[in-house]
Amino acid sequence: MGIVLGANQYGKAETRVVRVYRDTPRHEIRDVNVSTSLRGDFTAAHVSGDQALVLPTDTQKNTCFAYAKEKGIGEIEEYAVHLARHFVDEIEPVKGARIDVEEFSWERVTVDGIPHDHTWVRNQQEVRTATVTVDGEGSDQQVTVTAGLKDLVLLKSTGSEFRGFLADEYTTLPETTDRVLATSLVSGWRYAGTDVDWGSAYADIRRIVVEQFARVHSMALQQTLWAMGTAVLEAHPEVAEISFSAPNRHHFLADLSPFGLDNPGEVFHAADRPYGLIECTVVRDDEGAQGHT
Amino acid sequence: MGIVLGANQYGKAETRVVRVYRDTPRHEIRDVNVSTSLRGDFTAAHVSGDQALVLPTDTQKNTCFAYAKEKGIGEIEEYAVHLARHFVDEIEPVKGARIDVEEFSWERVTVDGIPHDHTWVRNQQEVRTATVTVDGEGSDQQVTVTAGLKDLVLLKSTGSEFRGFLADEYTTLPETTDRVLATSLVSGWRYAGTDVDWGSAYADIRRIVVEQFARVHSMALQQTLWAMGTAVLEAHPEVAEISFSAPNRHHFLADLSPFGLDNPGEVFHAADRPYGLIECTVVRDDEGAQGHT
Amino acid sequence: MGIVLGANQYGKAETRVVRVYRDTPRHEIRDVNVSTSLRGDFTAAHVSGDQALVLPTDTQKNTCFAYAKEKGIGEIEEYAVHLARHFVDEIEPVKGARIDVEEFSWERVTVDGIPHDHTWVRNQQEVRTATVTVDGEGSDQQVTVTAGLKDLVLLKSTGSEFRGFLADEYTTLPETTDRVLATSLVSGWRYAGTDVDWGSAYADIRRIVVEQFARVHSMALQQTLWAMGTAVLEAHPEVAEISFSAPNRHHFLADLSPFGLDNPGEVFHAADRPYGLIECTVVRDDEGAQGHT
Amino acid sequence: MGIVLGANQYGKAETRVVRVYRDTPRHEIRDVNVSTSLRGDFTAAHVSGDQALVLPTDTQKNTCFAYAKEKGIGEIEEYAVHLARHFVDEIEPVKGARIDVEEFSWERVTVDGIPHDHTWVRNQQEVRTATVTVDGEGSDQQVTVTAGLKDLVLLKSTGSEFRGFLADEYTTLPETTDRVLATSLVSGWRYAGTDVDWGSAYADIRRIVVEQFARVHSMALQQTLWAMGTAVLEAHPEVAEISFSAPNRHHFLADLSPFGLDNPGEVFHAADRPYGLIECTVVRDDEGAQGHT
Repeated sequence: MGIVLGANQYGKAETRVVRVYRDTPRHEIRDVNVSTSLRGDFTAAHVSGDQALVLPTDTQKNTCFAYAKEKGIGEIEEYAVHLARHFVDEIEPVKGARIDVEEFSWERVTVDGIPHDHTWVRNQQEVRTATVTVDGEGSDQQVTVTAGLKDLVLLKSTGSEFRGFLADEYTTLPETTDRVLATSLVSGWRYAGTDVDWGSAYADIRRIVVEQFARVHSMALQQTLWAMGTAVLEAHPEVAEISFSAPNRHHFLADLSPFGLDNPGEVFHAADRPYGLIECTVVRDDEGAQGHT
Repeated sequence: MGIVLGANQYGKAETRVVRVYRDTPRHEIRDVNVSTSLRGDFTAAHVSGDQALVLPTDTQKNTCFAYAKEKGIGEIEEYAVHLARHFVDEIEPVKGARIDVEEFSWERVTVDGIPHDHTWVRNQQEVRTATVTVDGEGSDQQVTVTAGLKDLVLLKSTGSEFRGFLADEYTTLPETTDRVLATSLVSGWRYAGTDVDWGSAYADIRRIVVEQFARVHSMALQQTLWAMGTAVLEAHPEVAEISFSAPNRHHFLADLSPFGLDNPGEVFHAADRPYGLIECTVVRDDEGAQGHT
Repeated sequence: MGIVLGANQYGKAETRVVRVYRDTPRHEIRDVNVSTSLRGDFTAAHVSGDQALVLPTDTQKNTCFAYAKEKGIGEIEEYAVHLARHFVDEIEPVKGARIDVEEFSWERVTVDGIPHDHTWVRNQQEVRTATVTVDGEGSDQQVTVTAGLKDLVLLKSTGSEFRGFLADEYTTLPETTDRVLATSLVSGWRYAGTDVDWGSAYADIRRIVVEQFARVHSMALQQTLWAMGTAVLEAHPEVAEISFSAPNRHHFLADLSPFGLDNPGEVFHAADRPYGLIECTVVRDDEGAQGHT
Repeated sequence: MGIVLGANQYGKAETRVVRVYRDTPRHEIRDVNVSTSLRGDFTAAHVSGDQALVLPTDTQKNTCFAYAKEKGIGEIEEYAVHLARHFVDEIEPVKGARIDVEEFSWERVTVDGIPHDHTWVRNQQEVRTATVTVDGEGSDQQVTVTAGLKDLVLLKSTGSEFRGFLADEYTTLPETTDRVLATSLVSGWRYAGTDVDWGSAYADIRRIVVEQFARVHSMALQQTLWAMGTAVLEAHPEVAEISFSAPNRHHFLADLSPFGLDNPGEVFHAADRPYGLIECTVVRDDEGAQGHT
């Protein structure tokens, strides 16, 4: 029985590219963190150390910078598709590529009430993400685009319950009909195709997710995620499935009774660890949802 | 020659207190990270292990939560003054206290264009800070309030030069008349007294700092900081001095010439380390500015 | 076409459990970070908010603490198997469980040359990991144990080349026959069964990995990982496959020529980002290696 | 009343320099993170943007790399003294300099029981630190060397009490005669002069600190720090004072009573925040200990 090379990929992670558009005095700016991963038959590189088929990760980094100029950075989904197709179509040994992009957003600084032409403040509210995979060549080529966001921190100061749950001999949690519900949401949605208006789809899906968090009287974080997911799929036929990973950022009611104070949902201790972690995918029933890792 | 106890203090660091105001359906929320440090003659606790004069750090934590209810959390400067005075005035062995507060801001989520009553999204643009020290008792008591901010990330995509600098045999940096200037600003300003409208002062000083970053055609980060500081002191007589710590978040022009591409200030590599670090204090000339650490 | 719940799981992440064995004056200590994930038909919890089948994540946390006493924490693989089987076998709605454990190691402090009975210093050299999944019940139950490590930072100051690689129009990297090779290794190996001496297997696999990093004259990080993997599989028939994720922690030769100094592999700049990232699995050819994410 | 420039300094922070000694096949390696800060009359740079007296931070970085070759990196205190003196003595406008160095230690990998010539594993047990300040020129020049360590994580599983403390109306903490005591120690000690064997002094002071943590039956963290400090000053006449910053990494006894289990100091929850923070300086009584920040 022999030993063989299984799944493998390699690339350059976290290339920090900033693109300024300055064709007019009113600049535009795009700020991204790009990671590339290439796939193909790289057995020789592993088994015998022969690098003849290996495009250096340094070259991949150079390509990220060069494409920021050649193709520009418009929507990150489009930039990632350009990069992925380049590696698969133009570098012979590369049969598949995965490009991950994080985008950090900047807002114009306001001076005397007027948005400034070339001065910016980081909007650290959430990070927009895109993952593009391209597999195969020619007419068999498959392009998969998953857009998403992370670090979107949401909180409801009421409108959340947790009760009626299963209890065993290790259960001590009391039921509650009014708690703080908070999460730092990570979400990714896979598009069925690539003929999508990336920017407006992102904005609207982000809006739906946030509004559903507000609208739903939550019996559990699971229910809130389901409501987000179904609302997105109903409004966006171009989305095939949407996944969520939602840490439950626990806010524990401070016990003020030793000090003769009541605490009707007013003072909380925001805890770091441990945290509940709820993960789910909402999918059209003709799609094969991805499994667990 | 003997060995003695020098400067010492102790307290509870990073108590995460969240205060919800829910007197009406339209909630308000305050989210803070509080650290307390107490000073006094705690020699016995060190030398002989006698804790009779030591108020536990656990008690200090409890007090942070209890005061969030008893005094409320309005402006963080006020909350910190309440805590500091409590420890100095009511706990006999405590002769001085320092309270540090970080405040994380939340914005109302908008649903159908209307700000929601009890649903929030973290605004991660900057963290507001306050440090209050109270020393001594009675009429000799000194209260010092320093307000500030951190993690305010600013960038100019033009309007920044760096040239005419001193060169020695280790100097290789070329001069430039057009570069990206970016920083993650930390600033703290000491008020001359405590009769201050903390919230509106904060908002206006923050506005001035950001606007000066935009307005100033910068010959160096030093010049920009000076302009921020003088503008704040000129507009706010209640501020005695203002300090800045400004990492220069370098954006290096990507070299695209090997690929036959020019790069007139369009594509940059945002580097992590090392970074220039510029620190200064701007002060009224009748004030003794603090020295270096 | 309908919308359905796809893959989902929930649990408590990062419960920090410390277990002291103090049956004799010579204590033992185990320090772990445990995450639990439960799987089953939790559709009702999502769709209608009905929590009747949901064992709270708080209960899962309690179970981690209780099992540290009831079952003890010996080898982390065993502790994780106990937890996973408990949830699947004893909680009716739970059909599958995944338990992740990180173990932080402590060494005895030496006093006068003698290891101390109850005083410890954190050995921060690497973190030992284990992931256990249990799926199904009774005779169909499948238990999968993957052990591993992370944060193992290795460096060779010579004995590493990178040349003969594929070049395209974006390639500027010069070839080298002598460079620094460094990585912060993450590795996980899946055992074919559960009848394993977890502790000694871990120690020996860790030894092989480190020794191979030293022994192999590296033509690329890929070759080094392959050598590690094959050596582990050859020496440990109980291991079915082994995976690696290896960031290339680049050490760039400092250019000292402007200062009239040569630099024959002596002074390096250790860079943070971007970094090459090499990932591969080495597998017996009768095993189906896992695919990419 | 005017506005003036107060305290100010500037420099390059966190230059990551790795120095390999390869004069024989048995290499040596030094891995440091260097930050430089220069002081002098830099008013013009701030007020008018005139950089004529400003040595760029880029040049300071170059000097760190060049000195790693020219002077080598032996003990970090010596390397820092070289750098600080260079800036003050050779760059005319610079009147003072502060150099901070962190050193990361590497151990040789063992192959077949033999330490390897050029392969290393990061020893992440603690980081060694040095801060050197040079002020003034010629015979008035003052050189101050403070050595230290950080991230030294220590734990006692018994031999620690906390009782007899001051209680007020916010005190709920029960007394204990047996608890876990743990900290991630930061310490810095100022040498009276520069005629010191830096390496052996560091090793011995580190040994004393760790042994005192083990030896002392602790009535509070304060007492343990005092015992460390006095032992260092008694054994090392070249040390003028020593400071400690010790977060109390709380280990809370898990409440297992709801599950019918007792817990006599066996199962703990290791908490992140908040944490007690104990800070003190131990000093010879002819030295003026530094005050608080």
